[in-house]
Amino acid sequence: MSTENLTLKRVGIDTYHENVAYLHRECSVYRAEGFQALSKIEIHANGLQVLAVLNVVDDENIVKPNELGLSEQAFKQLNEKEGCFVQVNHAEPADSMDAVRKKINGERLNYDEYFSIAKDIVENRYSKMEMAAFLVASGQSSLDRDEVLFLTKAMLETGEKLDWKELLVADKHCIGGIPGNRTSMLVVPIVAAHGMLIPKTSSRAITSPSGTADTMEMLTEVNLTPDLLNEIVRQERGCLAWGGTAKLAPVDDKLISVERPLGIDSRGQMIASILSKKLAAGSSHLLIDIPVGPTAKVRHMREALSLRKLFEFVGDRLNLHLEVVITDGRQPIGRGIGPALEARDVMQVLENDPDAPTDLRQKSLQLAGRIIEFDPDVRGGQGYSIARDILDSGRAIAKMTAIIDAQGGRKKTSFTPGKLYFDVIAENDGTIIDIDNFQMAHIARIAGAPMDKRAGVDLYKKLGDKVVKGESLYRVHAEFNSDYQFAQNLCASNSGFRIGPADEVPISFVAF
Amino acid sequence: MSTENLTLKRVGIDTYHENVAYLHRECSVYRAEGFQALSKIEIHANGLQVLAVLNVVDDENIVKPNELGLSEQAFKQLNEKEGCFVQVNHAEPADSMDAVRKKINGERLNYDEYFSIAKDIVENRYSKMEMAAFLVASGQSSLDRDEVLFLTKAMLETGEKLDWKELLVADKHCIGGIPGNRTSMLVVPIVAAHGMLIPKTSSRAITSPSGTADTMEMLTEVNLTPDLLNEIVRQERGCLAWGGTAKLAPVDDKLISVERPLGIDSRGQMIASILSKKLAAGSSHLLIDIPVGPTAKVRHMREALSLRKLFEFVGDRLNLHLEVVITDGRQPIGRGIGPALEARDVMQVLENDPDAPTDLRQKSLQLAGRIIEFDPDVRGGQGYSIARDILDSGRAIAKMTAIIDAQGGRKKTSFTPGKLYFDVIAENDGTIIDIDNFQMAHIARIAGAPMDKRAGVDLYKKLGDKVVKGESLYRVHAEFNSDYQFAQNLCASNSGFRIGPADEVPISFVAF
Repeated sequence: MSTENLTLKRVGIDTYHENVAYLHRECSVYRAEGFQALSKIEIHANGLQVLAVLNVVDDENIVKPNELGLSEQAFKQLNEKEGCFVQVNHAEPADSMDAVRKKINGERLNYDEYFSIAKDIVENRYSKMEMAAFLVASGQSSLDRDEVLFLTKAMLETGEKLDWKELLVADKHCIGGIPGNRTSMLVVPIVAAHGMLIPKTSSRAITSPSGTADTMEMLTEVNLTPDLLNEIVRQERGCLAWGGTAKLAPVDDKLISVERPLGIDSRGQMIASILSKKLAAGSSHLLIDIPVGPTAKVRHMREALSLRKLFEFVGDRLNLHLEVVITDGRQPIGRGIGPALEARDVMQVLENDPDAPTDLRQKSLQLAGRIIEFDPDVRGGQGYSIARDILDSGRAIAKMTAIIDAQGGRKKTSFTPGKLYFDVIAENDGTIIDIDNFQMAHIARIAGAPMDKRAGVDLYKKLGDKVVKGESLYRVHAEFNSDYQFAQNLCASNSGFRIGPADEVPISFVAF
Repeated sequence: MSTENLTLKRVGIDTYHENVAYLHRECSVYRAEGFQALSKIEIHANGLQVLAVLNVVDDENIVKPNELGLSEQAFKQLNEKEGCFVQVNHAEPADSMDAVRKKINGERLNYDEYFSIAKDIVENRYSKMEMAAFLVASGQSSLDRDEVLFLTKAMLETGEKLDWKELLVADKHCIGGIPGNRTSMLVVPIVAAHGMLIPKTSSRAITSPSGTADTMEMLTEVNLTPDLLNEIVRQERGCLAWGGTAKLAPVDDKLISVERPLGIDSRGQMIASILSKKLAAGSSHLLIDIPVGPTAKVRHMREALSLRKLFEFVGDRLNLHLEVVITDGRQPIGRGIGPALEARDVMQVLENDPDAPTDLRQKSLQLAGRIIEFDPDVRGGQGYSIARDILDSGRAIAKMTAIIDAQGGRKKTSFTPGKLYFDVIAENDGTIIDIDNFQMAHIARIAGAPMDKRAGVDLYKKLGDKVVKGESLYRVHAEFNSDYQFAQNLCASNSGFRIGPADEVPISFVAF
């Protein structure tokens, strides 16, 4: 390491999951251009170090020649004050990149190799490019099932773990892709009312228009300290919190930040991602929901079945009681898409409102029933009716209210959607024969969801509904002019709906 | 597209081959955070558009809430003045990413698909992550030979082409990896003195300690306008210029900026890269040099032979007269590594100095001889002696002087190496049995080459030389204190030399 000092500066640029360092082109002690081709540098201060990609700066307002600037993420990691001395070094490529190159060559990696990759990623030794290389090399079917197990374990072991000190800790997870699918906000109060422990932590939306955490945030706080979370779960048997504060399987968040923009979807990566997070969160019993449909993530029953077997293989070997349900993924669930509209749907179901969306109610009861059957005292097949009784009797809404109170009380906000809106209209008479999950999510997102909580899509028609020309199919809500325009352009190019003859409505091939 | 305007600002940050846009978190018309997950945006001004990765800014000194900042590269591409109005839009992923995902799935792509990928890359529609995904997916042996041909053609067709309007336009190319291998600076004057057209454009070093353009720059100008280049070639039959200004196979430069830091090396990509550049430069006859050795790029004769066949397959189909020579790649060529030290070696050979490195002289004569045999009037096997006569008679140095004069005259600089230096010493008696090409290049580079032209390594011993303990193996030169320290640490961890018994010197298995 060099002993030449630079002065640390915080540069107010948010570079997401990649550390960036800023060095002036005329840097007084290091030759900024000499670093260029290597492009990754180590910054040292008081025994701590961070790795960052180098950007060369020509403007002294950003960094001066005697300064080393760090983007906000990198600055936080170094945990030092502005103005302290830092030293800079060439960063050697992470050792585990050798294993990545082995994988690129089509070789099989062992557990130690996956562990070293996971560790280097957690320690920010990988650039986004390097993570993309790992994801592509381990993408699709290039991981065998033992490798999926190794990767899951490596992702689990490189983070922290929660221990609830109970024998049965239930959880559920949907592999995603279906807008409006907010079953967790119904399953948790039902299962917790039954007395089972279900400490649910959820993500915020990454590429979807709302995550459970975003929707729950319409009602109450979701950003809870580990201590408070623990207290709430002890008292209420359940919670609906954001999982982002805990350091559970941290590799996952970093890989997702690359995987999503690339639009690559690898079975092995997905399974490792889900199971490592759940195991780290202390779950002992897990229900996995795999929706199948022409625009769902999984499009064929044979794919769903092979995915199920892979989940079971890894779950069994990591001592997780895991069950998989294959569900109807032909269209969005419920009516609303976006935080406020989805929260409205959920509360209608909990309140036994006659207008509540039936599909959201039914699916939530089915899933809650299956989780309740994890209880050794419940007879096989009885879960659904127990769940229904809990919902119909008002015990579910009572439990939800208790959870909300414990998490900080009910927010005094209505679910009124965004003030700017337009309707998308049926262009001819007929029956709704297709609603594209992906496109509906995309429209809600472009309209501003989940950042603008009141933005999104409100569906007036679902599969099989008859429409006449001029009738409204759905309404798009936005809060910003630019988003309103973006969404209008998008709907004009593809509304996501198809109208046709009644006999072309796709039949759900899912038994459940 | 939205009609909301922002004011364009040039942000003095050099982000290399990736466009970056800077939007303030409190942007007045666009919701910066709404763009976050998509992370790529389109910026429009007066009918032009550029794509950029978004960084969110919290400091009004960088951009104000009504401004849109662009990094230097992106600003240049938009070709607008600061202060003009720009509009912003969500960037849809490049259409050709569908083809990349197909390749990730292990499918074969056709010419149209490679063309669309190349076109989107040239138009800056790919992020570095996306380029990494393409490189890994098409890496190693996943391209069949037809696909290598398609990729070569796609890279050729998405750039400009030179036409020298002669039947025989000669060129040479070494696949790289051998430090000090500056044969082009000898081959060009010899071949041009013979009267053949050899308009050589070379690259600057990317991960090596010196490219031909860097070394030639010690002697004269290499950054020539296309018109001047043309005039020099007409007059002198040859040149030694930097190829970077021409827009020949521009995809290649972008892919290299990702491939090199990842350290992935794909045969298909390499062949497409080399042949597309040479065809774009108007070459009709090409000699390819493949050095083989334990620390060369190609480590086994069987690899060299299969690479040769792939070169021949693609060359034949693109109407390029191509020959491959397999050379001794066991150690660096010549003595100096780094621009000044290599220029010294080259001039010693040209001036028939008795101290000139024999290996550089011999290899250059062999290569020049093979190129001279492209001349239909030269009898097979006569090339070497013609080349040797040209060098020994002083016609080569005369031609080099003429080329230097035409390119702007001889610079008045000596080849004196960097003033900071240290020697690496033999730790015991014995024979040099290994010189690691990669490590020697790395040391020269860390010492400051090629940015600091006088930095580098001067080899005192080569393979098979006897040494006694305490003797100097090589000297490292630097110009900056920090670089001197970096290089010293590196040599302490691995000197790149191995000393052992005389019978362990590896035998060259290359006939030539």
